Amino acid sequence: MHQIKVEKLLINYKTLEKFKSFKEYGNQELSMLEDIQSNIVENDSDSPFYGIYYGNTLVARMSLYRVEAKYDLYFEPPQEYVVLWKLEVLPDYRGKGYGKALVEYAKESNLPIKTNPRINSQGFWEKMGFQKAKYEMERDLGENPLIWMPEGVKEKEVD
Amino acid sequence: MHQIKVEKLLINYKTLEKFKSFKEYGNQELSMLEDIQSNIVENDSDSPFYGIYYGNTLVARMSLYRVEAKYDLYFEPPQEYVVLWKLEVLPDYRGKGYGKALVEYAKESNLPIKTNPRINSQGFWEKMGFQKAKYEMERDLGENPLIWMPEGVKEKEVD
Repeated sequence: MHQIKVEKLLINYKTLEKFKSFKEYGNQELSMLEDIQSNIVENDSDSPFYGIYYGNTLVARMSLYRVEAKYDLYFEPPQEYVVLWKLEVLPDYRGKGYGKALVEYAKESNLPIKTNPRINSQGFWEKMGFQKAKYEMERDLGENPLIWMPEGVKEKEVD
Repeated sequence: MHQIKVEKLLINYKTLEKFKSFKEYGNQELSMLEDIQSNIVENDSDSPFYGIYYGNTLVARMSLYRVEAKYDLYFEPPQEYVVLWKLEVLPDYRGKGYGKALVEYAKESNLPIKTNPRINSQGFWEKMGFQKAKYEMERDLGENPLIWMPEGVKEKEVD
């Protein structure tokens, strides 16, 4: 088995083309494409995406964003946390630890993590130590938030 | 064809049991179930869900929530708007106008609407007059927001 290496992905036409293989290709990627086409961002700009290559194929990816403590509605005490989304492994490469490697990478900052999983991925997230956040309608609306907390962090009490 | 009637759904064990037929059954419904079991809410309490019955079968539903103008990051001028989620028609009842009836009901308040569609439902939302919001990462994160605006409302310019 080859060594799994998580890389920060840079925005360029090559990466954006590879993104098209993923099911959750959406407004975020289209917006990045427009920004590069209209020179709003330079080639090889920073992106919120992290991925794993197998040879020349991007086989897994996720997007990460840090939310400032003042906007935290999930943890106690309120603190900086990470939102993780678009975690996806291409079908032919599943069951090989790529998803796990990405989530472990996200945990390295030792900040709490919040994600909104797709239907039927509950088992994976439980194995990764995530738990259901107590649902609060005004905050979560259509989401089914799952959270992971490093030692010493608690979930915020819901009123 | 029977008359399509959209009803506000009340939280009770019967409704919650019917919700289990829908694919997007999640934390929101589980939380409602816990609230009723622990008497935090009374039987037949108000809910954010609206649905359509065909005989005794709940065949379609959606959830609506009004966001106050001070939290509006989508429209110009900033104003009260509606978030629509969990729009879903049971498989055997699709193509009969139930989804359309629910969205038209949501439009009756004449407030702008925001939704985060599931993959592959783009065509339906376009027919209903929705358009892609310009993606803004800090606001939208993992969402692919679609918006509908009544006359006189504009999309907020993204910086």
